[in-house]
Amino acid sequence: MRRIYLDHIAATPLHPEVFEVMLPFLKDKHGNPQSLHSFGQDALAAVEEARENVAQLINAEPSEIFFTSSGSESNNFALKGLCLARKNGGNHIVISAVEHQSVLHSAKSLEKLGFSLSNVPVDRQGRVDPDDVKKAITQDTILVSVMLANSEVGTIEPVGEIARLCRENNVFFHTDAVAAVGNIPVDAKELGVDALSLAGNQFYGPKGSAALFLKRGTRILPFIDGGIQEGGRRAGLENVAGIVGLGKAAEIARKEIGKRTEKLRPLRDMLIQKLPQNVEHVILTGHPEERLPFHTSFCIEFIEGEAMLLNLDMQGIAASSGSACTSRALKASHVLLAMGIDHAVAQGSLVFSLIEEITSEDIEYLLEVFPPIVERLRKMSPLYSKYLEEK
Amino acid sequence: MRRIYLDHIAATPLHPEVFEVMLPFLKDKHGNPQSLHSFGQDALAAVEEARENVAQLINAEPSEIFFTSSGSESNNFALKGLCLARKNGGNHIVISAVEHQSVLHSAKSLEKLGFSLSNVPVDRQGRVDPDDVKKAITQDTILVSVMLANSEVGTIEPVGEIARLCRENNVFFHTDAVAAVGNIPVDAKELGVDALSLAGNQFYGPKGSAALFLKRGTRILPFIDGGIQEGGRRAGLENVAGIVGLGKAAEIARKEIGKRTEKLRPLRDMLIQKLPQNVEHVILTGHPEERLPFHTSFCIEFIEGEAMLLNLDMQGIAASSGSACTSRALKASHVLLAMGIDHAVAQGSLVFSLIEEITSEDIEYLLEVFPPIVERLRKMSPLYSKYLEEK
Repeated sequence: MRRIYLDHIAATPLHPEVFEVMLPFLKDKHGNPQSLHSFGQDALAAVEEARENVAQLINAEPSEIFFTSSGSESNNFALKGLCLARKNGGNHIVISAVEHQSVLHSAKSLEKLGFSLSNVPVDRQGRVDPDDVKKAITQDTILVSVMLANSEVGTIEPVGEIARLCRENNVFFHTDAVAAVGNIPVDAKELGVDALSLAGNQFYGPKGSAALFLKRGTRILPFIDGGIQEGGRRAGLENVAGIVGLGKAAEIARKEIGKRTEKLRPLRDMLIQKLPQNVEHVILTGHPEERLPFHTSFCIEFIEGEAMLLNLDMQGIAASSGSACTSRALKASHVLLAMGIDHAVAQGSLVFSLIEEITSEDIEYLLEVFPPIVERLRKMSPLYSKYLEEK
Repeated sequence: MRRIYLDHIAATPLHPEVFEVMLPFLKDKHGNPQSLHSFGQDALAAVEEARENVAQLINAEPSEIFFTSSGSESNNFALKGLCLARKNGGNHIVISAVEHQSVLHSAKSLEKLGFSLSNVPVDRQGRVDPDDVKKAITQDTILVSVMLANSEVGTIEPVGEIARLCRENNVFFHTDAVAAVGNIPVDAKELGVDALSLAGNQFYGPKGSAALFLKRGTRILPFIDGGIQEGGRRAGLENVAGIVGLGKAAEIARKEIGKRTEKLRPLRDMLIQKLPQNVEHVILTGHPEERLPFHTSFCIEFIEGEAMLLNLDMQGIAASSGSACTSRALKASHVLLAMGIDHAVAQGSLVFSLIEEITSEDIEYLLEVFPPIVERLRKMSPLYSKYLEEK
């Protein structure tokens, strides 16, 4: 059976060159980077080379890159580490209503420790209005966190503008750029952010490899206490093969972003245009233009996302219904609800996110296979029957 | 040049079978375990199989195993998560004076949050006396953490006895078993611990793969907030290949521990016996019998550990001078100082920790190569000149 992987947002496959550079570090080059002997020196050199490559991808200095094990860890590290390091300066945090669970729940954990939390709303396309952030900032605000791009609806946020007004108000600014880095050009200096999260699994790097960018001189509490790894801010034996893979993925992304975008954007637009032509009652979610070049997302009315996913899977198509981190929880997405989408409609969320191997034939196959699935599921849908009756 | 790796405690090489089972998860099986499609299902099944293997290695239930990214993370998770979850029950923590930095510094971070900390001393061999733990426990004590085996001096602690007296006093007990699990039989149920840390890199599994055992029903705060991974206690995309490798390493260790011990213990004893015969002024550190079967550690008087390591490395021998997590900090080991070893002597710390590939020829080579290194370095040592003058 033909298998088409349209779940970039859950995890990308490993780039073959990334796989190749990881291999020696799973074999002979097995040293601990902190060891003083040659095995250790080889591992340390590889980790530092990876740090340079990750830094270059986002126009940062190597000393501003701290390796972690996932985007979620980077987000926890940023929110908790930055807030706890400056709790004497204030106790107020601002995030947007469409943040990833790892930002949202880190903020909620901080609430339990005495911080207060404001959620900035988004519009129907999932965009944050910088003016709303400005209004939310008080004298007690110490941190604002707004994502660079949303993995569930693809919308790109006006992060540069938000960072600027945070600077003007002497408030630290973090952006969860996990869905963006490696897929669109991201320049940490130009954006003017203080902290930025990224993860290898979003740009053909390994799972278990991620990083936090911290602008030089930014005070943060360590996330994992212990040894002197990562400048004493994130202790624990380095996942050397994973870090090496992340570095290579960053190096490749820096060169290939333009080419990948050139290839995937037309396929994305083809799907966004044709799916609503082939299937009735389909709503595009997220911003129609200001969105990730590999990303399409819809709500298919009168059907639940899970049923569509399982039926698509039987046809060899892997898609998702929102964030993988909570997909098994089967709750309506807080992102869609924050965008003002009706709860029942939000249940029909479907994300087709493209990886670089995807061809126009794959999209055509999807467009052919999908309408009969929708038709079949709607026949069994009490919501759809009710709609037809009322029509 | 012959290369002999005697730095088990820093990190073991990957077992070839572990490498093999990881490969598919770095290639085609690239799904996110939380995705509902078949790519996700394959990944989830592999993660759950690994959980069973890790559980079996320490006689636990799969639901009691939580994957993390390092032994240090497991220790942070245990100390911070257990203490913060029961801070209303008391505010006192007891640890031993020879704990790993990740336990020690987690405890110190908790001190800053208002907890109070007691350090239990050790004897000259690095052993904790359970009576001292008993004496340290007060009405306010909520957690005791004592390691199962010390990676710097090899000493095995009387953890079963300490766990028993913690139970009698209604105090939770955590053990950092990173150096022990996979190398000596560890039975979490029989030991009666509430929490136990382990790491793949100590038994031929991958770096970046570790776990925390938590006895069923033990309340803990999540370490990484976010998605529903690891029962909502440790969010973030799973390092699938790493977890699969950890599972295989656990499966192999369960079968091979006896054989490995049978092979390495005589080599260990040969080195412990012969090194002091070939070199003057050598002190064995740690317990002579109650020690890890792969572990030898010494203080070589009048010389600094770093100089010996670099000279050994030039002869192809990789060894360490204590914990890799702080080796580049070049400070005298807090473990050796806690054991009452003089500060100057502690600077000459040297650990030869054996991996399963090591042969008696390797040990003989070390015994041949090492004495001239010591002789050469002592010639340059002001401390040694002073000693000779005073003699």
